[in-house]
Amino acid sequence: MTRNTTVILLLSCPDRMGLVSRISHFIFERGGNILDLDEHVEREGQVFSIRVAWDMKNFSILPADLEEAFTPLAKEFNADWKIYFAERKSRAAIFVSRYDHCLQEILWRHSLGEFAMDIPLIISNHPDLGFLAEQYSIPYHVFPITRENKIEQEKKELRLLKEHNIDTIILARYMQILSPNFVHTYPNQIINIHHSFLPAFMGGNPYRQAYQRGVKIIGATSHYVTEALDEGPIIAQDIIRISHRDTIEDLRRKGRDLERLVLARAIQYHTEHRVLVCGQKTIIFQ
Amino acid sequence: MTRNTTVILLLSCPDRMGLVSRISHFIFERGGNILDLDEHVEREGQVFSIRVAWDMKNFSILPADLEEAFTPLAKEFNADWKIYFAERKSRAAIFVSRYDHCLQEILWRHSLGEFAMDIPLIISNHPDLGFLAEQYSIPYHVFPITRENKIEQEKKELRLLKEHNIDTIILARYMQILSPNFVHTYPNQIINIHHSFLPAFMGGNPYRQAYQRGVKIIGATSHYVTEALDEGPIIAQDIIRISHRDTIEDLRRKGRDLERLVLARAIQYHTEHRVLVCGQKTIIFQ
Amino acid sequence: MTRNTTVILLLSCPDRMGLVSRISHFIFERGGNILDLDEHVEREGQVFSIRVAWDMKNFSILPADLEEAFTPLAKEFNADWKIYFAERKSRAAIFVSRYDHCLQEILWRHSLGEFAMDIPLIISNHPDLGFLAEQYSIPYHVFPITRENKIEQEKKELRLLKEHNIDTIILARYMQILSPNFVHTYPNQIINIHHSFLPAFMGGNPYRQAYQRGVKIIGATSHYVTEALDEGPIIAQDIIRISHRDTIEDLRRKGRDLERLVLARAIQYHTEHRVLVCGQKTIIFQ
Amino acid sequence: MTRNTTVILLLSCPDRMGLVSRISHFIFERGGNILDLDEHVEREGQVFSIRVAWDMKNFSILPADLEEAFTPLAKEFNADWKIYFAERKSRAAIFVSRYDHCLQEILWRHSLGEFAMDIPLIISNHPDLGFLAEQYSIPYHVFPITRENKIEQEKKELRLLKEHNIDTIILARYMQILSPNFVHTYPNQIINIHHSFLPAFMGGNPYRQAYQRGVKIIGATSHYVTEALDEGPIIAQDIIRISHRDTIEDLRRKGRDLERLVLARAIQYHTEHRVLVCGQKTIIFQ
Repeated sequence: MTRNTTVILLLSCPDRMGLVSRISHFIFERGGNILDLDEHVEREGQVFSIRVAWDMKNFSILPADLEEAFTPLAKEFNADWKIYFAERKSRAAIFVSRYDHCLQEILWRHSLGEFAMDIPLIISNHPDLGFLAEQYSIPYHVFPITRENKIEQEKKELRLLKEHNIDTIILARYMQILSPNFVHTYPNQIINIHHSFLPAFMGGNPYRQAYQRGVKIIGATSHYVTEALDEGPIIAQDIIRISHRDTIEDLRRKGRDLERLVLARAIQYHTEHRVLVCGQKTIIFQ
Repeated sequence: MTRNTTVILLLSCPDRMGLVSRISHFIFERGGNILDLDEHVEREGQVFSIRVAWDMKNFSILPADLEEAFTPLAKEFNADWKIYFAERKSRAAIFVSRYDHCLQEILWRHSLGEFAMDIPLIISNHPDLGFLAEQYSIPYHVFPITRENKIEQEKKELRLLKEHNIDTIILARYMQILSPNFVHTYPNQIINIHHSFLPAFMGGNPYRQAYQRGVKIIGATSHYVTEALDEGPIIAQDIIRISHRDTIEDLRRKGRDLERLVLARAIQYHTEHRVLVCGQKTIIFQ
Repeated sequence: MTRNTTVILLLSCPDRMGLVSRISHFIFERGGNILDLDEHVEREGQVFSIRVAWDMKNFSILPADLEEAFTPLAKEFNADWKIYFAERKSRAAIFVSRYDHCLQEILWRHSLGEFAMDIPLIISNHPDLGFLAEQYSIPYHVFPITRENKIEQEKKELRLLKEHNIDTIILARYMQILSPNFVHTYPNQIINIHHSFLPAFMGGNPYRQAYQRGVKIIGATSHYVTEALDEGPIIAQDIIRISHRDTIEDLRRKGRDLERLVLARAIQYHTEHRVLVCGQKTIIFQ
Repeated sequence: MTRNTTVILLLSCPDRMGLVSRISHFIFERGGNILDLDEHVEREGQVFSIRVAWDMKNFSILPADLEEAFTPLAKEFNADWKIYFAERKSRAAIFVSRYDHCLQEILWRHSLGEFAMDIPLIISNHPDLGFLAEQYSIPYHVFPITRENKIEQEKKELRLLKEHNIDTIILARYMQILSPNFVHTYPNQIINIHHSFLPAFMGGNPYRQAYQRGVKIIGATSHYVTEALDEGPIIAQDIIRISHRDTIEDLRRKGRDLERLVLARAIQYHTEHRVLVCGQKTIIFQ
C-alpha cells in the first residue's frame, strides 16, 4: 500500500466533550487532509459515533503504524473503532441458490466499478447459476446442502472463505439458513436480502403473506445476519406500491426489482464503510 | 332526489361469462349512460367484482325503484351488491381524543369540498378539541370513557349515531378500543388510521417499536375496524423514509404527516364508494 | 393461431351513450368471456376510450374474421381502433449505442418471460455491445452512422426491420436522432428513454443540466418518439432523490437505475397493449 | 440571551487542509461541546462548506463576543460565514393571497412548535384569509396591489417588515411578483413555493401545462426568490404520481398536498439554519 491512500475511521464511544476536535486534531497535526466527516450523537443512550475519511498523502505516519498510533486516543475514549484503507478493497463471497436476479445485479454493477470490492468466488448449493459466474470469470463452487451434511459442508465453505481472505458475505437470495457457528464467524459481515418490509412478514414466503393480508405496499429489507432469523440490524429498505390487481406472481416480479436495488444499496454502504452497527440498529453515514 | 343523479353499483359474485355485458346492458336498455366502469376478477377464488357508475337523467326507472328492478339479475348472479346515489352523501361521525392533526385535516378538506360527505357530529372522550369543532360549526359531544362506564357510554354514542343516520365512522386517532358490539353495528363502515405500516408494529406505540427496531422507513395504514385489533381490511397505506438521525419525537412528527394524508385518502375512497371488501382484503376501484 | 386465444381491443371515439354496453354485448353474444375491461372518458374533449380483453375459446367468429365482424360497430362509433391477439407477440428491435444498462435489463427480463414480445434483432451504431447480444443469442447488426451516410444507413435498417416484421422499436439509450422519415414509418411504435424528468432538461446532457440547476430530484421518462425531439407522448416516468453530495457521476449512476426500470415499465405497457395515444398524451390502462 | 444557548455556524470557503480541525479546535479550546457537525467539499469548485452546532454553556466567550472572536479565523480562510443562536428564533412574515392551504399548514405546524420561528405578522393583497390569522392571533395586514400602486405598497410593506425585525419572508402561494428592489432587500431570505417540479413548467398555471403535456408525475418546488422568476436556489422538492384519470382539478387538489408539505420542509430547513446557498444551488445539512 502506497501513501497515496484514503483511510476511513469508524468509531463509537460514550459521548463527551471534545471528541470531534480531538479526533480531527489527531488527523490534522499528522498532516492528514479530512475528505469527509459525519458524526452522530444518539441522545437516549448518549452514544457518540463518527465516520471520518482522510487523505494520507502527506501523513507523517505510515499506514501500517496508524492503528498503533490511534490506540491511546481510542482507549481514552473507551471506543469501539475500526480503520479501513479505501485502497484495500473488501473481499466478498456471494452465496446464491437458484434465483438469478440479485446475482446478475451484483455482477453487472461490479463490472461497472460501482462497488469497492473484489469477488474472489461465488458459492451455491445448486449448479444452476454457474453460467453467470462464468460470464464474469468468477470461480463458482457448489456445495449441495442436506439436513445431514449441512455442518460438514459449512465447514468446507468456511475453509474456502478463509483461504480467500473473505471479509464480506453476500446472501443474494441464498435459500439456506446458516448455522449459528457460521454466523458468529462473520459478525456484521454477512449481508442478507429479505423480500419483505421487515419486521412485517418474517420467515418464509412473504409475498404470499403480503397477498393474503391485502397490503397496498410491499417492501424489501437488507440486513446483517444474526442468529435470530430476520432480526439483524437493517441496512436498507425500500418499497413499491401494489394493488388488488397484482397476483402473487406479480408481487414476485415487482419484488425482484426491489430486492436487487435494496441489496445493491446495502452492499454499497457496507463496502464504503458507511455502516456502523449499534446493538440491533445501524447508523448509515452518507 | 331528482332524476339528475349519478348512481353507483358495487357488486361481487362468482365469476361467469357475460357479467359485464349483462350488467351494462341492464343499464343501457333503461336509458342509463355509463360514466365509469371498472371490474376485476380474482383468479385464485374466481370472484368477479365491479364498480359501475351511470347517469340517471334519462333512466326509465325511478331511483326509488332501482333496487327492486336490479334484484332479479343480482339473484341470478348470486351476488353481494349495493347501490349508492352520489347525491345522497355519506353521513360521517368523527371520533377523536387529543391529537388534533387528523381532525384538522379532515375538517379542512371537508370545507374545501374534497369529500362527498356530511359531518353531523364529532364525538370525543376528551373536551380538548372542542375549539376545532366550533371553528367549523360542527356539534362536539364528549363521552369520557373509563373501564367501568365504557359499555354504557358506547350505548349512548350508538343512540346518537342512529339519531343522526350516521353510516360512516372515522376514528381520527381515537385512543379507545371499540367493543365488539359497537364494531358489529357498523361492519366495514368504521375507518381507522394506524400509525405504522401494518402488519408491522401492531398494537400500542408503533413509533417506539419502529425506533427500537431501527427500520429505515415508517408507515401509516388506514383500515376498516374489525373485532381483531389492527387486522381489518386495509384501505390505504403510505410510507416515509427515516434515518438514524430521527428521534422518536421526529418519527411522531413525520408520522403525523403520513397519518393525515393516508386517512384522508381512505375517506375519499370510502365516500366515493370505491372500496369493496372481500374477506380480509379490499378492492379499490380507481 | 388456435382459438385458444385472448384478444385485446383498444378503441377511442367521441363519447356517446351505450358504448360499453354495445361493445360488451358484441363480445357476449358471440360467446366471448371478458377477462378485463377498463374505460375512460376524457371530459374536456368528450373522448371515450376503452381497453377490453376477452377469451376466444368459445367465440363464434374465427380470429381471422374478427376485424371484419367488428368494423360496422366501429364505423358507427366513428372510432379509432385496433385489435391485438395476445398469442401473436410483438416483434421488437432494440437499438443501442454504447451504454449497456438498458439493453442488459431488457434482455434479462425478456429471458424471464416478463415481456410479451420476441426480439429478432438488435441494431447498433457501434460494435461494443455485440457480446451481450451473443449471450442471449440474438443477431446484432452494426450500422455505423455519420452525418453523410445517415439516410443511407437508415434505409438499410428499415429494410431489415421490414424483413423481420418488426412492429416495435426500443431505443435503449441509442445516441442517434432518427430522421423524420424513419419516425413516420413507425408512428407510436418507437419507444425512447430520456434520462430526465421531461419536460425538464430536454436535449443533451440532462444530468449536467440537473447538477447545475441544483434540483433535489432527478427523473427518467419513457415516451414514444415523434418528430419533435423529447416531446412525444409520455408512457412512464419515475424519479429518485439526490442531494448536494451527489456528483454528476453519482447522478449518472443513480440515473442508470431509473432509466432501465422506467424503460422496462414502458415496454411492458406497450407489449401488453395497455397504451392508447391521444394527441400528445397517453392513456395507460392498468 | 443566557449562556444556555446553542450556536450554529454556517461557513463556506476555498478548500484547504485542516479546516475541520481548526474550526472544531476553536470551539473545543473555548469549552464548547459540539452537538452536530456536517461538512461537504464540492469537488468541481473546490469549495468547502460546514455547519457546526455547539453548546455554549461552558463557553469561555460570551455570545455577544463570539463574532469578533471568530473573525480572525474566518479571514484567514477567506470565508463567507454567519453565526446563528438557536434561542434567537427567526422572525418570519407570511405573504398570502387567496389560497389558504399553505397558510393553514404553516400556522398549524407553528402552533405545534415545529418551526423555530416567530410569526409577528401576515401580509396579503386580499382580505380573504384574515379569519385564519385571527384564529391564531396573528396581525393580518392587507395591501391591495395594482399595477399603479405596486412600488408604493411594497415600500409600506418593507417599512412594516423593518419595524418587526423580519428576517424571513414566506410566500405561501402569494400571487404577486415582488419587484427587484424588494427581492434585493432580503437575499436568500424569501422562500417561495412553486407548484411544479422546477425547471419544468415555470411561470403561470403549471397544472394546466402538466395536464396538457400528459406527464405521469407532478411536483412542487420550494426555492429562494431571486430576480429571475422561478430560477432561485432550490431548497426542497417532492412529487406525486398522477394518471390520465386526473383532471386539472384533481392535479390542483393533489398538488395542494404537495405544496404545503414541500413548503413546510423548506421552512424547517431554513429556520434551523441548515441551508447554505452556493451560487444557484443549495447545500442542505441534515
